[in-house]
Amino acid sequence: MKILFKNARLLPEMMPEGARPEDTAFVVVTDDKITYVGVNEIEDTFDRVIDCKENLLMPAFYNAHCHASMTLFRGYGEDLPLRRWLDEKILPAEERLNFRRVYYGAKLAIAEMIRNGVVSFSDMYFFQDATAEAVLEAGMKANISRSIVSFDPNITKDADERFAESVRLVEQYHGAGEGRLKVDMSLHAEYSNVDACCRYVAEYAKEHGLGMQLHLSETQAEHEQCIERHGMTPAAYFASLGVFDIPTTAAHCVYVTDEDIAILKEKGVTPVHNPVSNLKLGSGVMRLRDMLDAGLNVTFGTDGVASNNQLSILRELQTAAILHKGVHRDPENIRAGELPVIATRNGAIAQGREDCGLLEVGAKADLIMIDLAAINNIPSYDLATTLAYSANTSNVLLTMCDGRILFENGEYTSIDIECLRFEARQIIRHYFD
Amino acid sequence: MKILFKNARLLPEMMPEGARPEDTAFVVVTDDKITYVGVNEIEDTFDRVIDCKENLLMPAFYNAHCHASMTLFRGYGEDLPLRRWLDEKILPAEERLNFRRVYYGAKLAIAEMIRNGVVSFSDMYFFQDATAEAVLEAGMKANISRSIVSFDPNITKDADERFAESVRLVEQYHGAGEGRLKVDMSLHAEYSNVDACCRYVAEYAKEHGLGMQLHLSETQAEHEQCIERHGMTPAAYFASLGVFDIPTTAAHCVYVTDEDIAILKEKGVTPVHNPVSNLKLGSGVMRLRDMLDAGLNVTFGTDGVASNNQLSILRELQTAAILHKGVHRDPENIRAGELPVIATRNGAIAQGREDCGLLEVGAKADLIMIDLAAINNIPSYDLATTLAYSANTSNVLLTMCDGRILFENGEYTSIDIECLRFEARQIIRHYFD
Repeated sequence: MKILFKNARLLPEMMPEGARPEDTAFVVVTDDKITYVGVNEIEDTFDRVIDCKENLLMPAFYNAHCHASMTLFRGYGEDLPLRRWLDEKILPAEERLNFRRVYYGAKLAIAEMIRNGVVSFSDMYFFQDATAEAVLEAGMKANISRSIVSFDPNITKDADERFAESVRLVEQYHGAGEGRLKVDMSLHAEYSNVDACCRYVAEYAKEHGLGMQLHLSETQAEHEQCIERHGMTPAAYFASLGVFDIPTTAAHCVYVTDEDIAILKEKGVTPVHNPVSNLKLGSGVMRLRDMLDAGLNVTFGTDGVASNNQLSILRELQTAAILHKGVHRDPENIRAGELPVIATRNGAIAQGREDCGLLEVGAKADLIMIDLAAINNIPSYDLATTLAYSANTSNVLLTMCDGRILFENGEYTSIDIECLRFEARQIIRHYFD
Repeated sequence: MKILFKNARLLPEMMPEGARPEDTAFVVVTDDKITYVGVNEIEDTFDRVIDCKENLLMPAFYNAHCHASMTLFRGYGEDLPLRRWLDEKILPAEERLNFRRVYYGAKLAIAEMIRNGVVSFSDMYFFQDATAEAVLEAGMKANISRSIVSFDPNITKDADERFAESVRLVEQYHGAGEGRLKVDMSLHAEYSNVDACCRYVAEYAKEHGLGMQLHLSETQAEHEQCIERHGMTPAAYFASLGVFDIPTTAAHCVYVTDEDIAILKEKGVTPVHNPVSNLKLGSGVMRLRDMLDAGLNVTFGTDGVASNNQLSILRELQTAAILHKGVHRDPENIRAGELPVIATRNGAIAQGREDCGLLEVGAKADLIMIDLAAINNIPSYDLATTLAYSANTSNVLLTMCDGRILFENGEYTSIDIECLRFEARQIIRHYFD
């Protein structure tokens, strides 16, 4: 399968060498890879030619922190304090999850992400075999994980069902879908595990070449209670147990010290910025500028829908673009041009997908097209600022994952959206029956 | 003209008395007014029946602070410090404005607002006769004004062209389009006018029964310099000169003291919350909770596109919904249910449109329909939280202003969007020729 995109505008840093800013580009996708990027048309035959009509073609978004199936709880029990929201609403609702419910919850999330130009997500949840099936069917990518919560110092596969589920997921799904699906290990958080458990899970991840997903310093209370418990910050704690010797994606990182930032840098940990969730839950604002200045591989996540309530990396990018300027009272705090790589390439790196998140020859063809003729994107003096400040989710015209078009001009190619809508609504209607 | 909306879901506080939460409603619009709201179908003949299919029908959004024609400068000169952005980019660009350019700039803004469910805006800019024509043609509403900047203590119509333009606008356009168009007076800000000018313009507004638009305490510097200059805050300053004896819409109000809030309350001033602009320009975060607790008629504005860069009141509402929770580290700081009235009714009140912004019998029919079947709005447990956290701009299916449908299912009824796109792009291409 060979597809030619013509008349594409590219972000400045992705333009072929020697191109002028006003040039449009030709991009060829052969099977799952980008095989040509240039301003000159190439002689060849194509299965399909897509005229981008001077719309923006760019790498697709990566969502590095999600609990996909929480779509089922979108808007359920809002505006409550965290503890009541969890204890009275979310935990009792999660007790009623099963394979079918998680499957449709994940599918709902996947449909929304694809529509919003997201091709891959990192996920922590239960019944992740259901999420795996939904991902594989939809043609998306994901690093899924089953969060481990354990206070058992002698944790083993036989003693802990969460760890057992993690191991089963690895055996069944790691590398499935020609590598689109990966299974990571996951320690839910510092406060929800004991030392021996952290060491054990990290050791297992190391032996099997897996990544690690965890929550880190999301709230001030978490940060301070960890210091009380262990005499060190959550970042220092995980580092001391060898957890950060595993390639780690650390969600939130709202409360970090300068020393924590140095640890994250030294260990190559990816901090995931979830600005919408951190605001909505009242957690605070991450030190994005400091992390970028320290050279960390920061990327974006949405967190679960229950604390967001959208699954749009474009929205996270746009929130970050204005939030830090406002909080630091400095319009230069974050520049629009810094953001695309954070939302694309850095997410791919966090997922251990070295050949993804780039618009260049040899990379996997994860592409989106953004409508620059939309009334809200006129004029567009600079494509990075259009993305950071003007565009909206409905401007995503096309989403391609590993060379396969999953969404184009309002239509899904791999999801029966009417069926999904029906099933999801059935589940919600009878959720507490 | 008589239109029946059937199968409409309404926000809880707009449901007819005695209705159950799961009921859908019938809403009848006769000419420009709502003439029936109920859960029982009524016997009548209609020119058109619109099946809402259980989507949300609600009052349309009001944008209480805008510089509409700045759409021409969307994304022009981004991420610069305020002074350089103004001096090097915006002011030289504004020197080249003319009637035609402002007309198409305004039309571009109007098209975006209508698409986003906004039916009325309050505007401060130049060549406002051009904006007036664009508003009247598009079937929208607006309170337009020509900002006065004057250091002349003897300001008169003959001595000041800005004031002269204001007077001409009042004579020509105030009340035009069956009241859809109003002309307000405008004092640009405390720092850009002298005492006598403020008194003179306020006196003129009083004599002619006009409203007042101004910028108030947008930045900390403005606030502090005013205290240095006058020994009082901007709010106290305007109050002392009689400006607040005019019905006033005060944009920004980021830096206000408790005493300022008391003044705004006593004088019935509407503070306009522009969260996106205030963040993007590094101004800070308004004291929304305190203002709501004081009972102020707070409403939302987008500010100009040059500092936003979108014209979506839904986006402002959603930013406010999460921002104050995050900044105050309190997930209960703002509740979703408080926001719809701020974005609709309060804006109408600010514009002196007492019969607007309500979904009830006798009110002007300013309505929007929000797609609850959109994948990002499933499930919807509570309509206010769906609006505050889940919905996006592309979920606006229909926009009606004074009983006239201006946008429906992706199509404009009063704007030739292809022609507008062409003209706007021509202007931008040759802007500095």
